[in-house]
Amino acid sequence: MDRVKTGKLIASCRKEQNMTQAVDDFVSSGNGRLDQQLKFTAEIDKMTGVLRRTLLLDRSRRENDAEHSWHIAVMTLLFEEYAVEKVNVSRAGQMCVVHDLVEIYAGDTFAYDVKGNEDKQAREAEAADRLFGQLPEEQGKMIRDLWEEFDAMETPDAKYAACMDRLQPFLHNTLTDGHTWVEGATDRAAVEKRMGIIKEFMPEVYEWISDNLDNAVKKGWVKDSKQEV
Amino acid sequence: MDRVKTGKLIASCRKEQNMTQAVDDFVSSGNGRLDQQLKFTAEIDKMTGVLRRTLLLDRSRRENDAEHSWHIAVMTLLFEEYAVEKVNVSRAGQMCVVHDLVEIYAGDTFAYDVKGNEDKQAREAEAADRLFGQLPEEQGKMIRDLWEEFDAMETPDAKYAACMDRLQPFLHNTLTDGHTWVEGATDRAAVEKRMGIIKEFMPEVYEWISDNLDNAVKKGWVKDSKQEV
Repeated sequence: MDRVKTGKLIASCRKEQNMTQAVDDFVSSGNGRLDQQLKFTAEIDKMTGVLRRTLLLDRSRRENDAEHSWHIAVMTLLFEEYAVEKVNVSRAGQMCVVHDLVEIYAGDTFAYDVKGNEDKQAREAEAADRLFGQLPEEQGKMIRDLWEEFDAMETPDAKYAACMDRLQPFLHNTLTDGHTWVEGATDRAAVEKRMGIIKEFMPEVYEWISDNLDNAVKKGWVKDSKQEV
Repeated sequence: MDRVKTGKLIASCRKEQNMTQAVDDFVSSGNGRLDQQLKFTAEIDKMTGVLRRTLLLDRSRRENDAEHSWHIAVMTLLFEEYAVEKVNVSRAGQMCVVHDLVEIYAGDTFAYDVKGNEDKQAREAEAADRLFGQLPEEQGKMIRDLWEEFDAMETPDAKYAACMDRLQPFLHNTLTDGHTWVEGATDRAAVEKRMGIIKEFMPEVYEWISDNLDNAVKKGWVKDSKQEV
C-alpha cells in the first residue's frame, strides 16, 4: 500500500473513532426509547459521507446522499402538476428524505453500473435490517415501509418520488457537460430506461428529457444506441 | 490581498461562471413555467455551498445547509411523540426542507451571533423576494408561506419543525466537544434561550437538553451564566 493510501486509511479510521467515541460519551436521557432515537439521528449523519457520481452544479465536488435527498424533497413541492395521477406531495417528500438511508451501509450503486446492480437488492435489505433495527420497532418499520414503497415504484406517491430521483441527476448531468454519462460511457437506451418512470408518470417532463437527450448525444456526452438506428 | 486569497477568489469566480454558463446552455422545454421550475431547482443547489458553524459528526468539515435541512426533515419522523400538541408531521418535514433556502443569498447567521441577528430579518426578506420570485407566482408564495410560518413559530407544525432545527445542532455540539459553543464562547443562558421552544413544545426532550447542558458546563464547552449563580 502506498503512503497516500495509508494516510487516507488512517484518516478514515480516526474519523470512525471520533464518531464512536462521541456516541459512547453521549449523556443518556434515562429513557431508552429517546436514547435510541437520538443515537439513530447521530448515526444517519453518515449520509453526508456517501458520495454519488453526480457533480454539484458548481463542479467543486461530487454530491453526497444527504444533499441529493434534500434536493429531491424540495423538488416534490414544484412538479406535482405534471403527474398523471393524484399525489400526496408531503408523503412523497418523506419518501425522498429516507429513500437512500440504507446506502449508509450498502453504499451508493451507480444507476448505470450493471454489475453493481446485480446484488444491490440483497446488500440493501441487509443494510435495512441493520439500520432500521436501531430504532424502536414500529418506527423502524414505518421508515422501512416508506423505503420499500419507494423502491417498488407502484403507488402514485412512490412514482412521483422516483421521478424526482431521476429528474435531479438528469438535470445535473445536463448542466455539467454530461459528467456521469461520460464517465460511465453510457448509451442512450440505458438513460431512456432509467427515465422510463418519468415517461410513464410525467409525460410532459419527459419531452424535455428527450430533447435534452438529443442534445447530449449531439454533444457526445451520451452514446447513440444501436437500437436507435 | 495575498496570493492565497487571490487564488480563492479566482476559484470562486470560476465556479460561478461554470454555473451561469451551464444555466444559459440549458435546453429549453418550450414551456416557460417548466423552465422556471427547472432553473429554480438548479439555483437551489447553491445550498450545498452555504456553510454552517456546526461540524459533521465525523469532524471532517462544517455542515452545509442542504445537509442540515435534510437531517432535520428525517428527524420529524422520529420525535412526534414528545410534542405537547398534535402535529402534521409530513407538513413539518416540508418546512424543514425549505426553512433555510433564503440563506442562499442572505448567508447563514450563527444562532449566537448577536450583531448578525440584528439585520437578519431584513436581509432574509430581501433574499426571499429574489429567490422565490424566480418561481411561478403561486409556487413562490406557497414556499415563502411555509418559510414564514416556520420563522414565526406560532403553529404546532412550525414549533415542531423549529424544535428539530434546535435539537439537531445541539446534538452535534454534544457529540463534537461543544464545537460551536466553544468557538462562540457561548454562555448557558444563550443556549437555554435558543432551546426555549423545545422546553415549551417538547418538555421531555428538554430534560435531556438540560442534563447535557450541565455536562457541557462541567466540561467547559459552555460558560456558566451569571444568571445561574
